[in-house]
Amino acid sequence: MANKILIFGGTVVNDDQMFQADILVEDGKIAAVEVGLASRINGAKGQMQMIDARDKLVMPGGIDPHTHMQLPFMGTVAVDDFYHGTKAAIAGGTTMIIDFAIPNKQQTPLEAYHLWRNWADPKVCCDYGLSMAITSWNEHVKEEMGTLVGPEYGINSFKFFLAYEGVFMVNDKEFYQGLKRCAQLKALARVHAENGSVIAEKQQELLGIGLTGPEGHTQSRPEELEAEATNRACTIAQQANCPLYVVHVMTKGAAKAIEKHRRRGLTVFGEPIAAGLAADGSHYYSKNYDEAASFVLSPPLSRDPTTPEALMDFLACDQLQLTATDNCTFSCAQKRMGIGNFTKIPNGVNGAEDRMSLVWERGVCTGKLDPLRFVAVTSSTAAKIFNIYPRKGRVAVGSDADIVIWNPKGRRTISAKTHHHAVDQNIFEGMEVRGVPEVTISRGRVVWEGGKLNVQAGAGKFVPLPANCPLVFGTHAQKEEMNKPKFVQRI
Amino acid sequence: MANKILIFGGTVVNDDQMFQADILVEDGKIAAVEVGLASRINGAKGQMQMIDARDKLVMPGGIDPHTHMQLPFMGTVAVDDFYHGTKAAIAGGTTMIIDFAIPNKQQTPLEAYHLWRNWADPKVCCDYGLSMAITSWNEHVKEEMGTLVGPEYGINSFKFFLAYEGVFMVNDKEFYQGLKRCAQLKALARVHAENGSVIAEKQQELLGIGLTGPEGHTQSRPEELEAEATNRACTIAQQANCPLYVVHVMTKGAAKAIEKHRRRGLTVFGEPIAAGLAADGSHYYSKNYDEAASFVLSPPLSRDPTTPEALMDFLACDQLQLTATDNCTFSCAQKRMGIGNFTKIPNGVNGAEDRMSLVWERGVCTGKLDPLRFVAVTSSTAAKIFNIYPRKGRVAVGSDADIVIWNPKGRRTISAKTHHHAVDQNIFEGMEVRGVPEVTISRGRVVWEGGKLNVQAGAGKFVPLPANCPLVFGTHAQKEEMNKPKFVQRI
Amino acid sequence: MANKILIFGGTVVNDDQMFQADILVEDGKIAAVEVGLASRINGAKGQMQMIDARDKLVMPGGIDPHTHMQLPFMGTVAVDDFYHGTKAAIAGGTTMIIDFAIPNKQQTPLEAYHLWRNWADPKVCCDYGLSMAITSWNEHVKEEMGTLVGPEYGINSFKFFLAYEGVFMVNDKEFYQGLKRCAQLKALARVHAENGSVIAEKQQELLGIGLTGPEGHTQSRPEELEAEATNRACTIAQQANCPLYVVHVMTKGAAKAIEKHRRRGLTVFGEPIAAGLAADGSHYYSKNYDEAASFVLSPPLSRDPTTPEALMDFLACDQLQLTATDNCTFSCAQKRMGIGNFTKIPNGVNGAEDRMSLVWERGVCTGKLDPLRFVAVTSSTAAKIFNIYPRKGRVAVGSDADIVIWNPKGRRTISAKTHHHAVDQNIFEGMEVRGVPEVTISRGRVVWEGGKLNVQAGAGKFVPLPANCPLVFGTHAQKEEMNKPKFVQRI
Amino acid sequence: MANKILIFGGTVVNDDQMFQADILVEDGKIAAVEVGLASRINGAKGQMQMIDARDKLVMPGGIDPHTHMQLPFMGTVAVDDFYHGTKAAIAGGTTMIIDFAIPNKQQTPLEAYHLWRNWADPKVCCDYGLSMAITSWNEHVKEEMGTLVGPEYGINSFKFFLAYEGVFMVNDKEFYQGLKRCAQLKALARVHAENGSVIAEKQQELLGIGLTGPEGHTQSRPEELEAEATNRACTIAQQANCPLYVVHVMTKGAAKAIEKHRRRGLTVFGEPIAAGLAADGSHYYSKNYDEAASFVLSPPLSRDPTTPEALMDFLACDQLQLTATDNCTFSCAQKRMGIGNFTKIPNGVNGAEDRMSLVWERGVCTGKLDPLRFVAVTSSTAAKIFNIYPRKGRVAVGSDADIVIWNPKGRRTISAKTHHHAVDQNIFEGMEVRGVPEVTISRGRVVWEGGKLNVQAGAGKFVPLPANCPLVFGTHAQKEEMNKPKFVQRI
Repeated sequence: MANKILIFGGTVVNDDQMFQADILVEDGKIAAVEVGLASRINGAKGQMQMIDARDKLVMPGGIDPHTHMQLPFMGTVAVDDFYHGTKAAIAGGTTMIIDFAIPNKQQTPLEAYHLWRNWADPKVCCDYGLSMAITSWNEHVKEEMGTLVGPEYGINSFKFFLAYEGVFMVNDKEFYQGLKRCAQLKALARVHAENGSVIAEKQQELLGIGLTGPEGHTQSRPEELEAEATNRACTIAQQANCPLYVVHVMTKGAAKAIEKHRRRGLTVFGEPIAAGLAADGSHYYSKNYDEAASFVLSPPLSRDPTTPEALMDFLACDQLQLTATDNCTFSCAQKRMGIGNFTKIPNGVNGAEDRMSLVWERGVCTGKLDPLRFVAVTSSTAAKIFNIYPRKGRVAVGSDADIVIWNPKGRRTISAKTHHHAVDQNIFEGMEVRGVPEVTISRGRVVWEGGKLNVQAGAGKFVPLPANCPLVFGTHAQKEEMNKPKFVQRI
Repeated sequence: MANKILIFGGTVVNDDQMFQADILVEDGKIAAVEVGLASRINGAKGQMQMIDARDKLVMPGGIDPHTHMQLPFMGTVAVDDFYHGTKAAIAGGTTMIIDFAIPNKQQTPLEAYHLWRNWADPKVCCDYGLSMAITSWNEHVKEEMGTLVGPEYGINSFKFFLAYEGVFMVNDKEFYQGLKRCAQLKALARVHAENGSVIAEKQQELLGIGLTGPEGHTQSRPEELEAEATNRACTIAQQANCPLYVVHVMTKGAAKAIEKHRRRGLTVFGEPIAAGLAADGSHYYSKNYDEAASFVLSPPLSRDPTTPEALMDFLACDQLQLTATDNCTFSCAQKRMGIGNFTKIPNGVNGAEDRMSLVWERGVCTGKLDPLRFVAVTSSTAAKIFNIYPRKGRVAVGSDADIVIWNPKGRRTISAKTHHHAVDQNIFEGMEVRGVPEVTISRGRVVWEGGKLNVQAGAGKFVPLPANCPLVFGTHAQKEEMNKPKFVQRI
Repeated sequence: MANKILIFGGTVVNDDQMFQADILVEDGKIAAVEVGLASRINGAKGQMQMIDARDKLVMPGGIDPHTHMQLPFMGTVAVDDFYHGTKAAIAGGTTMIIDFAIPNKQQTPLEAYHLWRNWADPKVCCDYGLSMAITSWNEHVKEEMGTLVGPEYGINSFKFFLAYEGVFMVNDKEFYQGLKRCAQLKALARVHAENGSVIAEKQQELLGIGLTGPEGHTQSRPEELEAEATNRACTIAQQANCPLYVVHVMTKGAAKAIEKHRRRGLTVFGEPIAAGLAADGSHYYSKNYDEAASFVLSPPLSRDPTTPEALMDFLACDQLQLTATDNCTFSCAQKRMGIGNFTKIPNGVNGAEDRMSLVWERGVCTGKLDPLRFVAVTSSTAAKIFNIYPRKGRVAVGSDADIVIWNPKGRRTISAKTHHHAVDQNIFEGMEVRGVPEVTISRGRVVWEGGKLNVQAGAGKFVPLPANCPLVFGTHAQKEEMNKPKFVQRI
Repeated sequence: MANKILIFGGTVVNDDQMFQADILVEDGKIAAVEVGLASRINGAKGQMQMIDARDKLVMPGGIDPHTHMQLPFMGTVAVDDFYHGTKAAIAGGTTMIIDFAIPNKQQTPLEAYHLWRNWADPKVCCDYGLSMAITSWNEHVKEEMGTLVGPEYGINSFKFFLAYEGVFMVNDKEFYQGLKRCAQLKALARVHAENGSVIAEKQQELLGIGLTGPEGHTQSRPEELEAEATNRACTIAQQANCPLYVVHVMTKGAAKAIEKHRRRGLTVFGEPIAAGLAADGSHYYSKNYDEAASFVLSPPLSRDPTTPEALMDFLACDQLQLTATDNCTFSCAQKRMGIGNFTKIPNGVNGAEDRMSLVWERGVCTGKLDPLRFVAVTSSTAAKIFNIYPRKGRVAVGSDADIVIWNPKGRRTISAKTHHHAVDQNIFEGMEVRGVPEVTISRGRVVWEGGKLNVQAGAGKFVPLPANCPLVFGTHAQKEEMNKPKFVQRI
């Protein structure tokens, strides 16, 4: 009985259609999606777990394509490790994460890969994949990129930083070369887009006049610098003919830059995150250091209070494509490392648990997203871009049984007191959201139900992500052909 | 044997994924889509028609959501009737059309409905649906709209004209009321967007100075007037909270107006047509009357030679959504009715047969569309918008067996000499296209193969289109809630 | 002595330069603008009025190109008549107004012209000009337009309404014909741009559900309807090759429409008003009827609180060109005519007195406008567009001595208690502004000094405005040539 | 008699007005501008040179704010030295140039300044000023910038290069610091905006595959890289609160970036050049090396044939502000240095002589610019921005007698055979232009008349350009105030 589940009476929602159907889960896979299934297999019901989904929506489990569990960063380590982080994700209806392996200056990508696998494999409560950050640039790195894009490693994306000068940042020349290498490997390039050089100058100016509090974080990272770098990244990606994925789009300007390049034919994806869709940058001016510091992430939250709504508008009309969280949490105590110097506040916020509810509240309840689009931006599109669709991201026969049963009428109030993260604060504290996950199923097991978790460290599996995704590289060869150098014959 | 087909060795392309699979068609439906199916049912092969799809793409048959077969218009009748028109469509890989019933001033919508059904039912070679034009505005019309949006009639969209002053045109007040009525019925509003009043003035000016040739057609309909009316239509639709579908988007300005309103949250769809994607307005200045007149349709082809490519760019990034043809053909002799007065040239061009190949050539071969997007813009999206997906628009178990087997390496040269339309000219004459339909299957029957048609008048069926489509009205109620009037209590 | 004034020690500011100079005024004209003039004519000082302008700016007096003094409207008459209205203008540093003659349905333009002259001539305290509204459309009106554009009448602009259905509104066909007539007469067309038809529908909807308060004013006139009509007006003006002037630009959308058409080569000017630059539409939801009603004008103030700043940004970069007021004041008692039906609230607000200070406060003090641009948008550009520059709008030898001596360090608080309007409320009540007029000189006479008026009814003169302004029609003939119909010779 | 000139019967055109007047020139200055002057001073006519300007326009002489006379560059020296270059300018109606002193890696700015003065002073036939390029970045350079911005040196602008990697290029950090220094000195920053890093990569790629011809120039410098760098430069300038002047705006993308930042309040000026307004990049694909190479300049001419017209549209609506030439000419023989390696083709084209006629032909004759705007974009705006207005750039009493008498009906055909440059080719060869300079007057002397030059080396003077221009820095202090760092007091 353990490995059969029957979900009956619900409305299945995929990103392309909604319909009434019952669902049979067997051995971790979806075995049937049919109208009237429940009544037909009446006799066998005793042998399976029955879940009543009447008045509920049955959707593919969320995929969070951008997390940093237990990241060593800025002299400390993120408190949500792969266990707590995935537990929180599950409580929010998310059943897969894609985390970043980030080599430090002493590590090679391959070393980082193994490190991350060793950290994650024994702890994850749901499935996960990895994306590799490129933080140095040389021939050895280029070579290891080629190794990682193989079935045994399952890396199909690489991330570059245009910020964090002196730490992770690459310059335009390195970025261009990195993009060329990605294109050659048919791997997706991802980018953190802010102008790190000007930010470094601004930081010194502010510290120099004694402005050291968290309000310095936002003042040293004006949102125009995100828009600029996003435009630059898109331009350079188009020159390199390499598909691009812009992580954490925080501002209208960045979203517009993406929109502009999409219209010019660049394959580019934009990812807003839960924080950016539901909070704004006013908190940096809080008189309470802890509150102000808790919102510190980079790029910072927009100072424009109309930004969250605008980002949702971009998502709604497909000018941004999918949502993530950049979940990277630090405790109140850790955040206090930056007292007296805002550049030392560990950067990062929560999101993994609350993302889906926040997108429902801010997107569906406002009339911006229909339920199909909700599924697209929380799950299916991530599965498509990372080339694991329809195994993930779809409720269909043969797909993995990663499912969330959603109560569109449910309500809850977000709080650090009740969340399942390891961190002791929650930037969405006190927000009331409509739309809650009633049941989460991961790999065919009920891991969240009735407000209770039933997870197991290491129950999740690493999901290799294959390169050369049709949605990402489907136009690449023709583009290469169209743009090949033109020789003039002269006598 | 007649009703079983096995398609083997091909690559199935839907709008969300591509994969190798064999397909079993049975009794007009798709019965199986599986890898290795052909080898497993080896013994039964004698009982079924085998189609070799190796190196080919197996895609849902095209859907052309905008045709005018045998339309009585401007004192004559379009030469492609429902027989010839659907035959040509099939030869091009299209297996369903949506035609317009257009009542004249003496007819009610219901009368027009029956007239069109009577014309079409005995003649169609593939499935079809109907959209209803609203050419007068009064209480009776409003009432009949309600009748038509019922399962027995199967109308889920209504079209309004902002041009053709004195013939079909509605003014802003009528349009707004019409949109309100559509929203109430959960029916999609469609619009022909040009400023008919200014066009009428321009026509008189030009005729007044003796400019009577086909070049007057383009000069009396500057493309700015299409952009203006498109912007106005979108604005009014947003006020009425009614989803909108802009037919035949011919210019960058109109496309930009749609893009702008999509970003503001309007549910609006934009439809470029084959003519607009592959031809431009230079022909209106041809010294040959017949050539010039053959290109006359409204809105006219853009005078800007970069427009076709730009429209494809909008399609590529989902700011335009699907392609149609506005197929409405008049013979050379009919077009000569306008000698001496360009306003009397019957408006309309061909497209039904060549649309898919032109979109492949101009979209896929140029690196703008990948095959998934090709399927979306030629088939799936139309099925979704008109609420018959996944019965139509998808290669999946349970779907209608409307399939095209596409040869991406094929080439052909378009010509009136070889096309299957009833009309004696082809505006794409001489264009070479890559990408050709090898086999077309309609309702489970091979109707086109090896360059030969095997059709039968009346073999197609009327497909009722249900109202209240999730993709179209999925955000409607929430939008209504968000925008409800706000009362201030005063003492 | 009476007719000589020496202004010494100040900084002259014109729209193209700033410089130190003394100014001699004689017989109503500026007789000299020179450095060191004061010291050179030392002996003659006894015979002239000396004004100390040290630390002050000496600028051309303001020109308000859009007022409605004593307008009969909506069953009542505006309380600021030509005496009170021009008195208030003078107290604010404005020395010329351009008012509108608006014929009712029974009057011809010529009749309205004489009526307005008879009202204004005996009352005006400063110079004024007239613009003519076209509220009906027929051959007689066309003919009288020709008469009015003559030196004896001095009308060089005509205004059309796309709103006020059934009262002033013209439809697109009439508007196009009107624009063609203006172009023929080399007169500027001005337009009130809102979609009157949809507004009328909205009004009925709201009244129909019992929403009758002033909040209905804003809800029945969504700002999208202003943007739409502005875009339409610009499009039609371009088709008619007629320069256009959009009065009271209240929203970002309207400003963007103007910007777009300027880039396409349309000669179009956009006029924000004091109310739009300094107030927003939140007041319509006040629980106090009188407050809410006092802000009622059309188009309404924007509901977007960032609009005033954005309009100033458009002004700053020359995408809007000049400022006015639409001054049309109704008392609290008059505004109460609309209790129980918001469509009966007389439309109009104040502005004539406070415009210049508000533009200084919101434009110059915020770093958006430099003093040169301040002069441009409050005075010089109006003089140029209405073809009376440099007689007006410039501090230069030979110009009319209409001068304001501006204290950039001055501060005052706006209030109905202290203003010089006849109306008993002020929509800017309580706003503190930096930048105040110390001295106003009209036609060579000091009319405002030390907070005291010294005016005389009828002291102002009617200023005929000549047609065919170089700035407005300077490209017209070449545009006509470029766009002339193209004939194709066919055999 | 030598130093008095009477110009009679003409129409004076300044950037703000046109009017009939006679003009008296005396001792190098304009002594009178009056109607009827000629008749009043009848008796004295024998003592002055009479110039008949009937049917002509009398305008301020052109100012070309961007030239490189006798520039040592890429291993050779531009053939137009200060003598030939200014001679050509005069023949085209231009009476002042602003050239760039460009220190090489061994020189300091001050050394370069003296070098350029020594080169120019003895040779210039008309007045000139200097702008200083900043090609290294260190404390000494910063200090010398301060020295140069003094009345004795007369430098009020500094130019930075974002291209020419390894030669002139500064990185973002250096650029930001440079901008801060400019703002401190109240000097205008100018920028050459292209992404030099990506260009260097592209150059190596093309050379690496054996693509060595001039077509490699355009292919290694895609116009998107100009747009990107322009956007970046504007963004960084806004962060530094420094006014910016973008030299040689060659593409729509760059112009749009400027437009966008103007609307956001950045003080930024955009300068298209004669080459960009009248030619496009198709020549790079000429089969004739010499032709192809003659068009090589950086950024290259746009590959989009609609660009020249679009740039004129931006000029017309004040989103670009003034025109220059970047005149930097190399002979056919010099250009052949790049045979076998396009990166060695000396960069530069002509323009000084033909600019004004080309702007008239492409701007005024097409209905885009009126004569007032023509004066603005060829002369007055440059004078204003470089802070020498109204001494230059205006026909007014007291201004320098730098005048051009323009024949709007004149026609000529541009050719290297007849031009007055030292160079042996002309990129505008064969173009027919309407609008020609009949007479050019420099410092009160007729230097061009009846197609004949009457110039003298060294007759021109160096014009010191004062810092802190009101038009450039008029909003600077207020902006600084608005954007000053905000401290939060925490306990």
